[in-house]
Amino acid sequence: MNTISPLVKALALPLLISSAVIPNLFISNAQANTINHSVSHLNSEKLQHTVPKNIIMVIADGMGPAYTSAYRYYHDDPATIDIEQTVFDRHLKGRSSTYPAPVSGYVTDSAASATALATGVKTYNGAIGVDVDKQPLLTVLEWAKQQGKATGVVVTSRINHATPASYLSHNESRSNYDEIANSYIDNGIKADVYFGGGWVNFIRSDRNIVTEFQQAGFQYIDQYDQVSDLSTDKPVIGLFSEYGLPWALDDSNKYRLTPLVEAATKHLQNDKGFFMLVEASQIDWAGHNNDIAAAMHEIDDLASVMLYLETYVEDNPDTLVVLTADHSTGGFSLAAKGEYRWDPEIIRNMTQSPQSIADQIIANSNSETRSKTQLPSKEQLSNWLSFSLTDQEYSAITQVDAEFSTAHTQYLLLDEVEKQKIKDDYKVPTLAGFYRTALMDIIDKRTNTGWTTGGHTGIDVPVFAFGKQSELFTGQIDNTDIAKKIFTLLGK
Amino acid sequence: MNTISPLVKALALPLLISSAVIPNLFISNAQANTINHSVSHLNSEKLQHTVPKNIIMVIADGMGPAYTSAYRYYHDDPATIDIEQTVFDRHLKGRSSTYPAPVSGYVTDSAASATALATGVKTYNGAIGVDVDKQPLLTVLEWAKQQGKATGVVVTSRINHATPASYLSHNESRSNYDEIANSYIDNGIKADVYFGGGWVNFIRSDRNIVTEFQQAGFQYIDQYDQVSDLSTDKPVIGLFSEYGLPWALDDSNKYRLTPLVEAATKHLQNDKGFFMLVEASQIDWAGHNNDIAAAMHEIDDLASVMLYLETYVEDNPDTLVVLTADHSTGGFSLAAKGEYRWDPEIIRNMTQSPQSIADQIIANSNSETRSKTQLPSKEQLSNWLSFSLTDQEYSAITQVDAEFSTAHTQYLLLDEVEKQKIKDDYKVPTLAGFYRTALMDIIDKRTNTGWTTGGHTGIDVPVFAFGKQSELFTGQIDNTDIAKKIFTLLGK
Repeated sequence: MNTISPLVKALALPLLISSAVIPNLFISNAQANTINHSVSHLNSEKLQHTVPKNIIMVIADGMGPAYTSAYRYYHDDPATIDIEQTVFDRHLKGRSSTYPAPVSGYVTDSAASATALATGVKTYNGAIGVDVDKQPLLTVLEWAKQQGKATGVVVTSRINHATPASYLSHNESRSNYDEIANSYIDNGIKADVYFGGGWVNFIRSDRNIVTEFQQAGFQYIDQYDQVSDLSTDKPVIGLFSEYGLPWALDDSNKYRLTPLVEAATKHLQNDKGFFMLVEASQIDWAGHNNDIAAAMHEIDDLASVMLYLETYVEDNPDTLVVLTADHSTGGFSLAAKGEYRWDPEIIRNMTQSPQSIADQIIANSNSETRSKTQLPSKEQLSNWLSFSLTDQEYSAITQVDAEFSTAHTQYLLLDEVEKQKIKDDYKVPTLAGFYRTALMDIIDKRTNTGWTTGGHTGIDVPVFAFGKQSELFTGQIDNTDIAKKIFTLLGK
Repeated sequence: MNTISPLVKALALPLLISSAVIPNLFISNAQANTINHSVSHLNSEKLQHTVPKNIIMVIADGMGPAYTSAYRYYHDDPATIDIEQTVFDRHLKGRSSTYPAPVSGYVTDSAASATALATGVKTYNGAIGVDVDKQPLLTVLEWAKQQGKATGVVVTSRINHATPASYLSHNESRSNYDEIANSYIDNGIKADVYFGGGWVNFIRSDRNIVTEFQQAGFQYIDQYDQVSDLSTDKPVIGLFSEYGLPWALDDSNKYRLTPLVEAATKHLQNDKGFFMLVEASQIDWAGHNNDIAAAMHEIDDLASVMLYLETYVEDNPDTLVVLTADHSTGGFSLAAKGEYRWDPEIIRNMTQSPQSIADQIIANSNSETRSKTQLPSKEQLSNWLSFSLTDQEYSAITQVDAEFSTAHTQYLLLDEVEKQKIKDDYKVPTLAGFYRTALMDIIDKRTNTGWTTGGHTGIDVPVFAFGKQSELFTGQIDNTDIAKKIFTLLGK
């Protein structure tokens, strides 16, 4: 793998320390300042002209190439003959391979890929900011902080979820959510802005990490609208939900990521510049659920962020924006089962996720005496879905109760070992799950959407970039190259 | 859709007639020469320096982005820690949308996409070189011919199959194979080299088109090795099979496309340059069959062609090579069913296609008294597959006969209308088909390969280019842009 592109070579950026293979996470601030000073001394003029002051790294978790193609048709205005270009189309630079370290084969998880994007090093699936020997790796966010830049993370998952954690923490397993949350204080505070979800790990009975952030001088908010009242002279932690934020489709603001990103950029802006990580985390979750409606609306939220970032770069041309996915999820295809069509019309108008509608169906039933007569009417259900169900589709929904009962009875008959395996795979049958699946099945048939997996696939992902030095991300690259190029632009 | 990139604008290539929307297929040679002369007069020096003399358009039918990612891992040398870059990776420029004219929705077939690639105009699925009103459209090959360039087509399908036909012919339906073959003579001979399959349509009881080509001064060959004995002063038609060529996996030379392309480039080379269409046609057919082994070996054959073309461009830097797919086929995914793995090891060593092995199983049976005892042994079958079957896998193969019998009996009970529908969909149950499916099922499980369709999907396809002016194909483009850029480079 060619790790330094000819373009980078042509730029003759300072590569004084880039040959150091040993992770220099433990360079002291004094050392870092010395290195930084010498770099500045040698190249200050050149640096000023060639490297961006601000770097915004956007990760669209799970958004493989089928998703951005599909979004073009989802986003298409059927009233015009042309297919409108999307904000993604304008900035396509190439694509990136995503494979993890050999020990994990060719198909990555979010932790290994985020670690590659954050550190430039391949690692095993599940690793958070550590290499295959579980040793910590310097991340681009940490290095930016050492260079005196402001730093921030804005995500729609928990802020200690795999992707942001890989930029902020070092842990042998992504599953150690509490440990990772603890590390955000215990290993030194690394960011000036944290926006996302995560009360479950940050406000615990054994430890209140939010309070600790406040004691360290942070302001805390827990409502979206509070972003407009932030004090500019104090760092900020904003947690808006127990786990991830609600689906874009179900949120009070279906474009909830944009105001968070806008507030973060304004808060981070300073003379020395900033590094910000943005993650549209839930495209991946929609892919895992094989939920095309939720996926398209998550991407619509991200597209709105990109439109905002276009205006930001126009106003602040000293800014680089890079957008990629960590992997693709679901084996999603536009068209399936031999039919040459993909029809996104019905999902354009949806205003609630299948999950939310399933929850409403259950809430609407008497859980004790649940029966078909308590199902919402075909009209009511059509209203929730924003499209008219056929008799056949509604009939399928009326079967769900019985199908669930059968599956649940079979589950109860399993021995404890088999039950535990199903629990570990999050596959315990639930009535809400059965309704959600039945609704998604109708949507998949209407749109002619295909899926091959509830997990990830090994397809290369698109890379988009605009702003200063965005050409560096052109062509076929690897996810580790993205970190390496950012390190170079940050003077490492 | 932005049809002329800033790069093209920056080149200030002659756009004298590019604003003419009306297809000027019927420009006489005299007119064309006049236009060409005036272009030469105005820009001869600039043209010489900016446009490639030779243009080689390579279409990898059906090779969507999952295929080139998968090929990297198929091609990987497991003995080294690095994942080796492929010849595709070196030349990635961006990606292309493939949607047809609105009347056909968002998912294209090969005819509409090849027509877009050949003419720059969107049309309906099934259309060969005609627009939505069934009017003929000028193709880049025809225009190149009018400019005095040599032209050629080298494909692994019939030479009158959808893709080559869209460059050479104009017909309202791709299914009119005989009509299209007739047009290769009746509407004027447009190429100097034709290599591929197609005896079925070119040597018929009602008309022998090969003889007509010979009468028009062509030499005819029907064996691969005859390409080394071609007379350089006569055009050539080489047909090597009844329909398409055998699968790469089953062919006498598993890299059968390379010598054909090499012979064609040598034959076409001349002072005025050439336009050549190459199609790796059968990646698509493997995708339709959901046959990952056949697909990877077809791509391996194409990769060998690209390696040859790299050396050709090195020796002839006045050459542009563009490679893209017309669409993606099969909804193929690297990984499936929740497992985070894709294991191509077993298919690397295969030396026969599942189809060929299925045919051998049947040939090996007594068709009158066919029974399980006539199945090849587990060892024999493992030998044909080049990997060792487990007892469970072999057991599945032993069930095929009974499964086929059941399906076939059910088919025979259908009424004639239902039977015809199944015939039209090429889904009449056959014993060979059942064995092939059973073998592919084993391979899919071993490799953890997923599929969503026997048809096409709407995902964008990768675009690769190298040689002179290859930068023109950078970023997000549309399949029509590829023809438009080639027209521009050809002085239109």
